[in-house]
Amino acid sequence: MGNVLTSRSENYSEWYNDLIIKGGLADYSAVRGCMVIKPYGFALWEAMQSQLDKMFKETGHQNAYFPLFIPKSFLSKEAAHVEGFAKECAVVTHYRLKNDPDGAGVIVDPEAKLEEELIVRPTSETIIWNTYKTWVQSYRDLPLLINQWANVVRWEMRTRLFLRTTEFLWQEGHTAHATREEAIFETKQMLDIYAKFAEEFMAVPVIRGVKTANERFAGAEDTYTIEALMQDGKALQAGTSHFLGQNFAKAFDVMFSDRNNQLEYVWATSWGVSTRLIGALVMAHSDDKGLIFPPKLAPVQVVIVPIYKGPDSKEKIDGRIKEVMSELRNAGIRVKFDDDDTNRPGWKFAEHELKGVPVRMALGLRDIEGGVAEVARRDNGEKSSVSLTGIADHISNLLAEIHENMYNKAHAFREANTRRIDNWDDFMTALETTPGFILAHWDGSSETEEKIKELSKATIRCIPLDGPDEDGLCVLTGKPSKKRVLFARAY
Amino acid sequence: MGNVLTSRSENYSEWYNDLIIKGGLADYSAVRGCMVIKPYGFALWEAMQSQLDKMFKETGHQNAYFPLFIPKSFLSKEAAHVEGFAKECAVVTHYRLKNDPDGAGVIVDPEAKLEEELIVRPTSETIIWNTYKTWVQSYRDLPLLINQWANVVRWEMRTRLFLRTTEFLWQEGHTAHATREEAIFETKQMLDIYAKFAEEFMAVPVIRGVKTANERFAGAEDTYTIEALMQDGKALQAGTSHFLGQNFAKAFDVMFSDRNNQLEYVWATSWGVSTRLIGALVMAHSDDKGLIFPPKLAPVQVVIVPIYKGPDSKEKIDGRIKEVMSELRNAGIRVKFDDDDTNRPGWKFAEHELKGVPVRMALGLRDIEGGVAEVARRDNGEKSSVSLTGIADHISNLLAEIHENMYNKAHAFREANTRRIDNWDDFMTALETTPGFILAHWDGSSETEEKIKELSKATIRCIPLDGPDEDGLCVLTGKPSKKRVLFARAY
Repeated sequence: MGNVLTSRSENYSEWYNDLIIKGGLADYSAVRGCMVIKPYGFALWEAMQSQLDKMFKETGHQNAYFPLFIPKSFLSKEAAHVEGFAKECAVVTHYRLKNDPDGAGVIVDPEAKLEEELIVRPTSETIIWNTYKTWVQSYRDLPLLINQWANVVRWEMRTRLFLRTTEFLWQEGHTAHATREEAIFETKQMLDIYAKFAEEFMAVPVIRGVKTANERFAGAEDTYTIEALMQDGKALQAGTSHFLGQNFAKAFDVMFSDRNNQLEYVWATSWGVSTRLIGALVMAHSDDKGLIFPPKLAPVQVVIVPIYKGPDSKEKIDGRIKEVMSELRNAGIRVKFDDDDTNRPGWKFAEHELKGVPVRMALGLRDIEGGVAEVARRDNGEKSSVSLTGIADHISNLLAEIHENMYNKAHAFREANTRRIDNWDDFMTALETTPGFILAHWDGSSETEEKIKELSKATIRCIPLDGPDEDGLCVLTGKPSKKRVLFARAY
Repeated sequence: MGNVLTSRSENYSEWYNDLIIKGGLADYSAVRGCMVIKPYGFALWEAMQSQLDKMFKETGHQNAYFPLFIPKSFLSKEAAHVEGFAKECAVVTHYRLKNDPDGAGVIVDPEAKLEEELIVRPTSETIIWNTYKTWVQSYRDLPLLINQWANVVRWEMRTRLFLRTTEFLWQEGHTAHATREEAIFETKQMLDIYAKFAEEFMAVPVIRGVKTANERFAGAEDTYTIEALMQDGKALQAGTSHFLGQNFAKAFDVMFSDRNNQLEYVWATSWGVSTRLIGALVMAHSDDKGLIFPPKLAPVQVVIVPIYKGPDSKEKIDGRIKEVMSELRNAGIRVKFDDDDTNRPGWKFAEHELKGVPVRMALGLRDIEGGVAEVARRDNGEKSSVSLTGIADHISNLLAEIHENMYNKAHAFREANTRRIDNWDDFMTALETTPGFILAHWDGSSETEEKIKELSKATIRCIPLDGPDEDGLCVLTGKPSKKRVLFARAY
């Protein structure tokens, strides 16, 4: 294949890049910080989209689409929001090119300068709340439960494929409610949907929690998050759901008359996950042989490789494989027949391992005569000879088993790499020698949080929602604390 | 409702805008020329996307995603291409905002100027062919059959909701082939898919044809088009498929070694349809009471309105309606129960007419006791009393019948408004008094085409693919011609 992968122990970061590039998920592009999502990577994103979209619609949300461009003045209307995004905005200043009078191609036409610059959306709260102003008058117009699938741009200085790119694809939900309680309920409901998606579809266990004030979304009153642990012991924020209070309603003057005909500001939430999830999925599960995709999202769940011995066997083998394919398809299994005759089976096996296909079936003449196939699992490498009678049921069960195993393995890894730590020396030692999640006490002040970050490069990933109350002393300052919070170095 | 619509005869253009805005499909936005696609309009787009995506995948195409931004120098690499798009480009020149030192909000940071400006994609041939350069080495890498669903920006001076907006949503297919023949086959295949989609899903009949040199896509060797006739007698280009020859391969130096190990330039196609299709659908079918949606794409196919007489009947009616709903859903019918108790049935009937729901069912106590429902068709207004026994089959058949009727009506309208015209006076008179398609002879020169456009505002929509060979004389110059071409004023 010429596709020798860097191993995780050699260089984790290069291993990741190798998987993304050689696994055919994405490519660098000619535009700084932007990537090309290749068909195989995009198929994974489509599978994610389709499932998430279903979950959003089941909870009453509808899709809509708002402009790519945001007038500069809109960004400024919510103080914390502009503070958070101003430094990474792509700005459109002109609307026309013209021929260079000196004959050197095209140049920006200086006469086509916009009166007000437009920002390529880094997120859409401002343009959406400016629109909601015209949509909401009365309590009867609420709640507004809207989601948008879109591209956004944040001018990042250091980028990594899927994990942090200048342009990325995401969904952003933006809802409007009559009461604080209803908005908080929505915020938490969407966090639960993200957690369910991560665990039940990506097979990635996550910790649900609330961000500290320092780590909140720019413009939110509370940011809820799901945090996952990667194989190198670093945390990855996989999705966030924000309770925005009345901040955007006030900034854009969105009021409604309630049942008593009183004018009130509307309550807001926003929530999003992005193509970053692909990075999380890759880093959580894959190994030194390549990608390992969870069955529910894998673009190809089963690949069938024919083992020919001479031309005579081809017809018979292909015929039997097509029958098997159709049985599997009827059971809703995504199956591919790798009948490419330019590569040998061994090459194909390695290729499908690299690509993370959950199940590989190999079928030769002797298998067919014996009514069996060789079935290999990508997650643990186990091979077995399986009867072709009832093959669809067998594979369905196997796919479910693979999902369970992947989840359990990732969960066990996280448990083994989550440490309760009570003093500063241990805290630093753990980060340097056995990186992972650290549950430690914190005195609740932003100053301490900053100081810890400065000293250790670890941040508070969240205050876990299901963490027990427990008296303790701050790991840095020794001041009293009522609950442990989750620390880690993070992507 | 307070939603009085302008009629078509009063002002066709305002009638259209009324349908889009009051029908809840889209809204103007705060950004010049950009629209907000509202949930009901977006649901229609999702239905279109889902069907087209299926047709693309069935013909072997895969989705991928390429950057939103195109380096300015890329655009210049294909001469005709840059000529065609330079005048309508949104240009990103800076990547950061900063606080105004004078305290007046945020300003563009002059120190964050890009070395090379980035164009917000008006179409993606250049960035994609720059990528294909690294993907294609050998004939074994071909064909590349890729589609992208994306937003694009063309800085239009005069915009109209859905028909012509600065930002719009579309799909763009970009394929690479080893031979000219294969690329031409692909170009035509995709045109056929567009025609099939327009006719079998939108119920809009289309003429397939080739554009003249003047009307070709910037950078194409041939542009194929489907043209539809709107109710005001104007044409609407509903989709185009381009044979790009080797133009982009040469501009971006994309070569492959063929089976004989000879290096050759790759052959290209591109093809696209956009949210403009929503405008076409609305203008082709709707009437003075509102939208009329074709059943296969309607977000809601059947709406059920309960007719209560006093509170006692509610429980019984609701219960029966839920049974009917579940029967319809099981038959794959998209059904909505309008149980909003703040509006009366008459208001609801008008609202669902405005919204173009193909079938309305009304159910009161007497209906239920008689085992029937009142069923009203949106396309022709016919009402009938239908037995609730076997209701799902009845509605399925009715939806198919409505599709047929809508298509036939649009087809008959087009036939009645397509005229064979052989002299200039008749040509001008027809355009002024009975606008529609005109089949006329043309001498084949760009000069004549320009002159006709200047005199009449009519353009050659296409040279119809199925037009018969026929000797004749150019309608303007009297020079000889071998085939009639299709003229119209157009959107």
